[in-house]
Amino acid sequence: MGLPGDTNLELLHYIGSTDMLWAGNSNELNAAYAADGYSRIKGSPGVILTTMGVGELSAINGIAGSFAENLKIIHVVTATGRAAQEKRIMIHHTLGDFHDHRIYAKMSSPVRVSHCYLDDETTAVAGIDRVIRECYIYSRPVYIYVPVDMVHKPVPASALERPLFLNRSSNSNAEEAALHTVLSALYSARNPVMLVDALILQFGLKPLARNLLELLKFPTFCPFMGKSVIEETKPYFYGTYNGRFSYPGIQNSVEEDSDLVVHFWPLPTDMNTGGFSAKINPKKLILIQENKVNFKGQAFEGVYLESFLTRLLNSLDISKVPKIAPLSLPAPSPPELPEIQETQITQAYLWPRMGKFFRSDDIVFADGGTTHFGLQDANSPDITYNMQNYWASIGYALLATFGGAMEKRDLIKSKTEGWNGVKGEGNGRVIFITGEGAMQLTVQEVGSMIREGLDILIIIINHGGYSIERCIVHPEAAYHDIATWNCKYMLDFFGASDGTARTHQARTKEELEAILTRPEFEDPKGVHVLEIFTDKMDFPWRLKAFGQAYREMKGT
Amino acid sequence: MGLPGDTNLELLHYIGSTDMLWAGNSNELNAAYAADGYSRIKGSPGVILTTMGVGELSAINGIAGSFAENLKIIHVVTATGRAAQEKRIMIHHTLGDFHDHRIYAKMSSPVRVSHCYLDDETTAVAGIDRVIRECYIYSRPVYIYVPVDMVHKPVPASALERPLFLNRSSNSNAEEAALHTVLSALYSARNPVMLVDALILQFGLKPLARNLLELLKFPTFCPFMGKSVIEETKPYFYGTYNGRFSYPGIQNSVEEDSDLVVHFWPLPTDMNTGGFSAKINPKKLILIQENKVNFKGQAFEGVYLESFLTRLLNSLDISKVPKIAPLSLPAPSPPELPEIQETQITQAYLWPRMGKFFRSDDIVFADGGTTHFGLQDANSPDITYNMQNYWASIGYALLATFGGAMEKRDLIKSKTEGWNGVKGEGNGRVIFITGEGAMQLTVQEVGSMIREGLDILIIIINHGGYSIERCIVHPEAAYHDIATWNCKYMLDFFGASDGTARTHQARTKEELEAILTRPEFEDPKGVHVLEIFTDKMDFPWRLKAFGQAYREMKGT
Repeated sequence: MGLPGDTNLELLHYIGSTDMLWAGNSNELNAAYAADGYSRIKGSPGVILTTMGVGELSAINGIAGSFAENLKIIHVVTATGRAAQEKRIMIHHTLGDFHDHRIYAKMSSPVRVSHCYLDDETTAVAGIDRVIRECYIYSRPVYIYVPVDMVHKPVPASALERPLFLNRSSNSNAEEAALHTVLSALYSARNPVMLVDALILQFGLKPLARNLLELLKFPTFCPFMGKSVIEETKPYFYGTYNGRFSYPGIQNSVEEDSDLVVHFWPLPTDMNTGGFSAKINPKKLILIQENKVNFKGQAFEGVYLESFLTRLLNSLDISKVPKIAPLSLPAPSPPELPEIQETQITQAYLWPRMGKFFRSDDIVFADGGTTHFGLQDANSPDITYNMQNYWASIGYALLATFGGAMEKRDLIKSKTEGWNGVKGEGNGRVIFITGEGAMQLTVQEVGSMIREGLDILIIIINHGGYSIERCIVHPEAAYHDIATWNCKYMLDFFGASDGTARTHQARTKEELEAILTRPEFEDPKGVHVLEIFTDKMDFPWRLKAFGQAYREMKGT
Repeated sequence: MGLPGDTNLELLHYIGSTDMLWAGNSNELNAAYAADGYSRIKGSPGVILTTMGVGELSAINGIAGSFAENLKIIHVVTATGRAAQEKRIMIHHTLGDFHDHRIYAKMSSPVRVSHCYLDDETTAVAGIDRVIRECYIYSRPVYIYVPVDMVHKPVPASALERPLFLNRSSNSNAEEAALHTVLSALYSARNPVMLVDALILQFGLKPLARNLLELLKFPTFCPFMGKSVIEETKPYFYGTYNGRFSYPGIQNSVEEDSDLVVHFWPLPTDMNTGGFSAKINPKKLILIQENKVNFKGQAFEGVYLESFLTRLLNSLDISKVPKIAPLSLPAPSPPELPEIQETQITQAYLWPRMGKFFRSDDIVFADGGTTHFGLQDANSPDITYNMQNYWASIGYALLATFGGAMEKRDLIKSKTEGWNGVKGEGNGRVIFITGEGAMQLTVQEVGSMIREGLDILIIIINHGGYSIERCIVHPEAAYHDIATWNCKYMLDFFGASDGTARTHQARTKEELEAILTRPEFEDPKGVHVLEIFTDKMDFPWRLKAFGQAYREMKGT
């Protein structure tokens, strides 16, 4: 991903003679987001190439999101030549009194785990290998800085034959002890509960976690961000645990009725914990984290997630696992309905309907705002659901969809199965769901979707402004309103030859049903758009609850 | 400028009870660019309001540009409450192991001159006053960090009655000495040459510089970035001095034939110096800079630009100023013409034609790439021409136009004349000229132009990809190509009710003439679009020359 820029052209030119694919983006923030989405589906790093200064700084918010949410990104920044840097020439894209061509690299250092400056051909290869390894093992962004005069330097090809060691070995004593302790707890539990959180995806451990749960069959919940990691149709799956913003009985089952809670890589953010209302007694809690296991307050350090889960799965004696009776949870109370016509599409209607629209193997990217909160109420088949809910940068998901769809297309071509069991072949579609407000931030990349000929359904929820902000304070204020666009012309503008025919608008339930059952929504070829209009004062119940909680917590 | 975001809503709400105007943008980078454009026309700071983390990092490249090119920007960042920061709660928009809510403020510190954290109501007022003062005197961005719980704290209104001292007083001895020395040099010059550079605009000194030259009538040139600072129709104006990329005779007149060169605030960047080929003997050079006068190598420190120019103007004894004979420069050689049909719009034809299209008082914003190089050949009436040629972030000018047009509208309403003599009333139009590649980066803000009902002509030069990159290396490479959009639908998509009728496309000179003389191009109401198609291998001669120079210099 990236944009051509003055200093990166020569490096870019080499891509043509590799099996890498260049996907030019419309701007660098978009490129960073796209690399993140690609990595979510592919598992290996998304690579973004920018020029120094303007390019890398434009991308920085996207890279920060990948850092926050543990995505593998290699950011390659091309710069002026070494002599020009040494002389600090006042070339364009420099600034200040000193024209330090590396000042931007310093600015971005908090949002990566590792970097290298390719200043010397004798150390360049080792530097590149080191940052790639660290990108993998920490699953976070890294940065490679390439002075333009280094692009053409030859380095020994032999380095390519040395495999990169991309795993971390646990401390074996600690892992042995943790394993023993956790197994004993599992075998002796009476009311165990499992929580599987989002970061399991970033480390490619969805299949492993699923296998483990399939053996245990303990009652399982997903935190807000963990949706879709565990198959929702499993009898032992009981929905979203989000503290006090959970369906009736769920908070109680997890926090009160349980005697053991095993949490796979918890991410205790505000939205992921029902505004910090999710509170589990540490005395019954096992946290299985990236680099340690925390057993009821006792830490086993240097125990790595993949290694530990693999050993846990292999060591489990199924005969010792207790059979846990199904939970009996009350039915959710009917959602509060706003006073609007019965034919109108309400938030309460919309999201469960989306759940029915989804098919197994669909890849769904959702943007922040109404969509994240609404989709929690979409009971889904076995989809891959992606959201950037912790960093929460609006506009992100349009690009993540672009990146994800690029990788999906590769999987189809190569007839392989991908990271976390994502399928290339099969029934799965790529679906992007967004509010019309979030879409405005990054909309130009719809043009790249069209240019690349990707198959994508774009579903726009048009609620007349920024609903999530409206829900927090002063709902009637004019600053929640945004420019009113006419999406009927979007695909035409961005270069589709038959854009209007590919675009549908639904204002009533009847219209929505008619569109969702159209053949091109069953099996999309190219980009198709559905714009759904809802009332601007109609919010998903979870968003309303969170708005209230947010007003209380942000100042505390 | 800005976007509503969770932590800034409460502050935003207060804007409604002031005489400030809120212009919601489509994303934060766009907001930063718009604030920059606003400040270029208004003179006082452009203000951008973002949320912490995602918002401020998205804006950082725009702020960096304002820092590089000396624009006054106040970046207000709203954050979580002080207690939440103290506890480092893991709320959305935080990252890493430590959830430092101020890490982003540290990242952006190299691109501002001053900042304050509003943590304490007893020091908040002084902090705000300090950064506003520093924003003015250094003419660069500043940063105000507002924890959300501080928004409602009362502070004494009396502070508002204390005027801010926004000027800098020179060291009077140094100024006196510099004045005497410079005046003597002016009086005794035989072949003096004046160079007036771009930063004169940022400090609002265009009228002062013009008055001075009108008295001196010495032969005057503009560096590349200084275009339009001095009225081009003046008999003592001789065009663009850009080192070896100047019209015939110019480099010689400035560098060889002169005995004195007075340079008003030089900005010796690569593009502004013809790829560093502009070389003036320091023994005959006077540099009048922001905070010093450099006289033939001798520095008079602590002499500030506005103060010095004002005194120079007031002290000039016109009877002692020598009368300088007009220069005799050879006519420019005819441009090299590519082999294309005579009816086709060539770069050689286009830019002089644009010069004829401009009217006095037009405000012209041009994006980077072909446009900057081409417009140097547009001999212009007395326009205000704005370009961000040093930071050179593509996509910038669309937003600068938005910001500039907002200020122009205010000038019309208030019936006043603005900064640098920009007129509200009168014949002037707001014209935005861009390549179709640059436009893609920030296109969504065309929606904001329409929403605000601004009067803007958008002229898109469609040369089928990134021409400036194509001109540097490998012109046929596919990565120079971009997604092909259909601009006929742009205004319709972004919400204009009669978008197609407002959009015109020109492929021949005849078509171009017919469009440029349409009444709505003479006196635009609302947004109008003209898309001009040129051959993708046809470049302005200056761009070709620079492409060659760039290949040589970037590595050196």
